[in-house]
Amino acid sequence: MAAFNLEPFMRTHQARVEALLLERAERLGPAGTPPRLAESMRYSLLAGGKRLRPVLCLAFADAVAKASTDSAVVLDAACALEYVHTYSLVHDDLPALDNDDLRRGVPTNHKVYGEPTALLAGDGLLTEAFNVLASGPEPVRGLLCAELARAAGSSGMVGGQVLDIAEDRPATLDYLLRLHRLKTGALILAACRMGVLAAGGDAAALASAVTYGEAVGLAFQIADDVLDVTSSAEAMGKPVGADAEAGRYTFPAVVGLEESRRMAGELVARAEAAVRPLEGADGPLAALARYSVERKS
Amino acid sequence: MAAFNLEPFMRTHQARVEALLLERAERLGPAGTPPRLAESMRYSLLAGGKRLRPVLCLAFADAVAKASTDSAVVLDAACALEYVHTYSLVHDDLPALDNDDLRRGVPTNHKVYGEPTALLAGDGLLTEAFNVLASGPEPVRGLLCAELARAAGSSGMVGGQVLDIAEDRPATLDYLLRLHRLKTGALILAACRMGVLAAGGDAAALASAVTYGEAVGLAFQIADDVLDVTSSAEAMGKPVGADAEAGRYTFPAVVGLEESRRMAGELVARAEAAVRPLEGADGPLAALARYSVERKS
Repeated sequence: MAAFNLEPFMRTHQARVEALLLERAERLGPAGTPPRLAESMRYSLLAGGKRLRPVLCLAFADAVAKASTDSAVVLDAACALEYVHTYSLVHDDLPALDNDDLRRGVPTNHKVYGEPTALLAGDGLLTEAFNVLASGPEPVRGLLCAELARAAGSSGMVGGQVLDIAEDRPATLDYLLRLHRLKTGALILAACRMGVLAAGGDAAALASAVTYGEAVGLAFQIADDVLDVTSSAEAMGKPVGADAEAGRYTFPAVVGLEESRRMAGELVARAEAAVRPLEGADGPLAALARYSVERKS
Repeated sequence: MAAFNLEPFMRTHQARVEALLLERAERLGPAGTPPRLAESMRYSLLAGGKRLRPVLCLAFADAVAKASTDSAVVLDAACALEYVHTYSLVHDDLPALDNDDLRRGVPTNHKVYGEPTALLAGDGLLTEAFNVLASGPEPVRGLLCAELARAAGSSGMVGGQVLDIAEDRPATLDYLLRLHRLKTGALILAACRMGVLAAGGDAAALASAVTYGEAVGLAFQIADDVLDVTSSAEAMGKPVGADAEAGRYTFPAVVGLEESRRMAGELVARAEAAVRPLEGADGPLAALARYSVERKS
């Protein structure tokens, strides 16, 4: 059987996300938002990227609803996920954390707008995610806010970032798994769960989303570490080898390149199996799982 | 008629808030929160303070419900407000913004835990506010999340902070009013509104909360500026005269000390009038309005 052709699916859904972000970005800043702040938030939101988290959210909503879902809740959930992802990049890039100059091939937010505005733009993006997600009459919005807050908070992304900067972290696979389940995995998992919840999926669909989201979240990070070793700076849009130079613990550094690839492959297979009840032998979700490790940037 | 005696009311409600924060702080950090992050978040959350925002939320809920409200939604709203207030203090104190060493009489978060952890503790507190507020079955939680996000976001506190650090800000009363309506006023207004909404108040009660919250929010900031000129460092728990030294625009600097006091008095009278339909000739809300400008720290 021919594999599902992800390319047109990805193109269509990324375009949907870009259009949504652009439309909302234009509304960022009536009623009192200082223009410079709105510009700084837009700069990072609209700087491109794979839009993996919103695409996963839309793809799960599509799969659960058995048709394209254009409900406001689903679209708002997709946008909120990208807001939170973008906030985390803006803050991670700050001098106090990674002190990065380039992101997605362009200067980082603080390099363009200065550190004070970048810090506040990150705060603004994190807060606006909940504004987008909570503003509307549907009762499910409260549940979605709780999902997003748990994924982003101190036992999610923020917790993972703290583990990542800890000076005494051990170079063990256990620590690396714990770190990335929080730092990258939690939001990818939330994207899958939120797609199901926003589209009204049942408990079985939610269980599929959990198995898939956990596996893809981890596989994505392993692939990121592998790319950092093997890819070119041009394809990544940021300096490569940076992880190793900063003395960071990566999957290739801890378990080797081949074992990292084997683990990623096993996780993808687990993710593919988890979504078979939702989309049959092959579909966009299975293809997205493969994409998470086969991508070139 | 004797004025309402705020002191026992304030003591009881502050103690309620402290107990709530302490109870939740102990739960900050099961399931994966790194201990150092949880400690840093607790450090700033439990460093004292007047707890004005949660007390206003509880007082409005009490007034609307005509009895003490112990519903989970009201208590969670009160806590979420203090989480957001504390996050804003932690981020404002960072070297990228005010670079303050002291807060509430003790070293600022980044002085104790370092800048990276303080940045992330702020992010964690902001996110956990929505976690606390969204986690529960009551449909009103989504609405409360939207209220809090609007107050905290780019057309609220974050927007106000950007106006405050703008290099080209004009020394006019208009600009100062706009700045403080966002930076301090938005969250105080939200505290009042959220108390009414969480306790199921009607549209008339909400209208009272809006008039009162806008007036008290502004009066509170004017009083802060006046205290900065007239108070001692000991009473404030932070260096005084710092605003003027940093070349900041304050109400006394722009309109003079006497006009600042006159404006604050007028705002308090407006707030007292607004809550008369809720609590009669004098009650805790009217007394809280007076306290917002008569406090010594």
